Amino acid sequence: MGADLYDVVGIGNAIVDVIASADEPFLERHGMTKGSMMLVDAERAAAIYAEMGAAIIASGGSAANTIAGIASLGGRTGYIGKVADDDFGAAFRHDIRASGAVFATPTAGEGPPTAHCLIIVTPDSQRTMNTYLGACTNIGEDDVDPEMIRSASMTYLEGYLYDDPRAKRAFELAASIAHDARRKVALSLSDPFCVERHRADFHALIDRHVDVLFANEAEALALFETSDLDEALRGLRGVTGVAAVTRGAAGSLVLSAETVVTIEAAPVPRVVDTTGAGDLYAAGFLYALARGAPLEKCGALASLTAGEIIGHFGARPQSALAPLAAFI
Amino acid sequence: MGADLYDVVGIGNAIVDVIASADEPFLERHGMTKGSMMLVDAERAAAIYAEMGAAIIASGGSAANTIAGIASLGGRTGYIGKVADDDFGAAFRHDIRASGAVFATPTAGEGPPTAHCLIIVTPDSQRTMNTYLGACTNIGEDDVDPEMIRSASMTYLEGYLYDDPRAKRAFELAASIAHDARRKVALSLSDPFCVERHRADFHALIDRHVDVLFANEAEALALFETSDLDEALRGLRGVTGVAAVTRGAAGSLVLSAETVVTIEAAPVPRVVDTTGAGDLYAAGFLYALARGAPLEKCGALASLTAGEIIGHFGARPQSALAPLAAFI
Repeated sequence: MGADLYDVVGIGNAIVDVIASADEPFLERHGMTKGSMMLVDAERAAAIYAEMGAAIIASGGSAANTIAGIASLGGRTGYIGKVADDDFGAAFRHDIRASGAVFATPTAGEGPPTAHCLIIVTPDSQRTMNTYLGACTNIGEDDVDPEMIRSASMTYLEGYLYDDPRAKRAFELAASIAHDARRKVALSLSDPFCVERHRADFHALIDRHVDVLFANEAEALALFETSDLDEALRGLRGVTGVAAVTRGAAGSLVLSAETVVTIEAAPVPRVVDTTGAGDLYAAGFLYALARGAPLEKCGALASLTAGEIIGHFGARPQSALAPLAAFI
Repeated sequence: MGADLYDVVGIGNAIVDVIASADEPFLERHGMTKGSMMLVDAERAAAIYAEMGAAIIASGGSAANTIAGIASLGGRTGYIGKVADDDFGAAFRHDIRASGAVFATPTAGEGPPTAHCLIIVTPDSQRTMNTYLGACTNIGEDDVDPEMIRSASMTYLEGYLYDDPRAKRAFELAASIAHDARRKVALSLSDPFCVERHRADFHALIDRHVDVLFANEAEALALFETSDLDEALRGLRGVTGVAAVTRGAAGSLVLSAETVVTIEAAPVPRVVDTTGAGDLYAAGFLYALARGAPLEKCGALASLTAGEIIGHFGARPQSALAPLAAFI
């Protein structure tokens, strides 16, 4: 077996973000839970958009953000996700390729338009997301390129894919191919409500396949149906090789069977928009892990890359992250 | 005659900006002149985009940016411009309406897609623009709503419209309707190369119709075919009621037959992207003028609104400008 072609291949919902600022009453008026992700249909998406202010449009998608981040650090990456043949799909394709990632998933020929996520950023810089999955629901097992998965050291899966039955099958196929080829699998739990919706399935997947798990506190608590973080941390150490639990401004905890490492958040001059913080944390972490760095270095680089992304609107790096890679 | 319904109605190229950072060699490789606007066809636009990095997409268009700025200050505005029935067109329509402006120009039913401008921001924060006019070339005299023009105190025209014969006719019709209704007309010269291309037409238009003229130094020099700024300034005072000449970090000069006012640039913590600086200068100026402010206040508010826009990516305000309006 030769050297791996990719450090990380990601599979996720290929989404374009539509980002606008709004105040807290906007969230209340529209029944949104601050900081969470809500799935919306085309009609509700249109209704929310109609009331949003002028917006910035930028490629997003959780795993895609992570892959773009790893590419920006200098990692070799590939991405699997479904867009439609429209302006947003073209922008997504351009941006993920411009980051340096290989992206060859066939465009959906018909059906709903490219997915978009209406993101409201409140004055406290928190983001609240409303996702219209659109063309993402057309991803299928055929889109999972087995060669790409087998030639990647790590396959990275976003939990959001569990929200659609077809995407879930593609997701599980990718995990199986990776493990059968003795590659590693990483998973992000994505959102506490997503964990609530699919808890049993997540547990089964983690038991079978997952080597590296990313969660924030709320997601870790939701996974183990507890309000006690220590209990959730014990649970994580029992089920996966490495887990990273992010805690916003309080930093993060990196857990393995042998150790618990406390990581501080990187200092950020001004937090503008927390969209993508978790995704870019995973980017720094996985890049460092692929380079063979010890867990404390993985966590430290993760803090730096998350710090870059929250300093501006949007979930893709605005400047090349490569200089940060020198840190490990 | 009742009170005017609009403070300012703008007519311009309805464009979506696609903005990415790049270094100076990128400009050289693609034969771009830094700081200028170049018209490109669909093929060249695609070739440039393919080599650009991951981009932010945001509504743009010179007059549209100005109108959105005036609306954000609290002014009553309308906009006339042509988009196609695609994602970019929908985003443009949403954003201009979300700013508070009335926008009712019919969408182009067929023909080229919504215009986009590929903007390269170099490390010195200068923007270099490549415009594919697309659906803008479908604007016609039918799109100029005479009632809207007649019920606006001021009609604002962007010089860029002169680059397309149909748009030029629409533009001249709007100017005629405004003046016949004893309303004021403002013009932005847009770009020195645009002035070179259409110098005689601009002179004729200014002589016949223009009450307020916006130009940067290069455009003022180009209009009078001189390299002597004093000569250009004398020229401007001879042909129009009020002229504002912007000078980047050196501030601006506001000229009338009676006076020359020197305006300082507003202090900006960090210049990120100069896209829209001239457009938002015009926004502050015209809003103050509509409120009856003296020229020094018009220039000072213009400096503040231009200062907001160069502090972030994109040419539309990221925060409501209304607090700045208290300044006049």
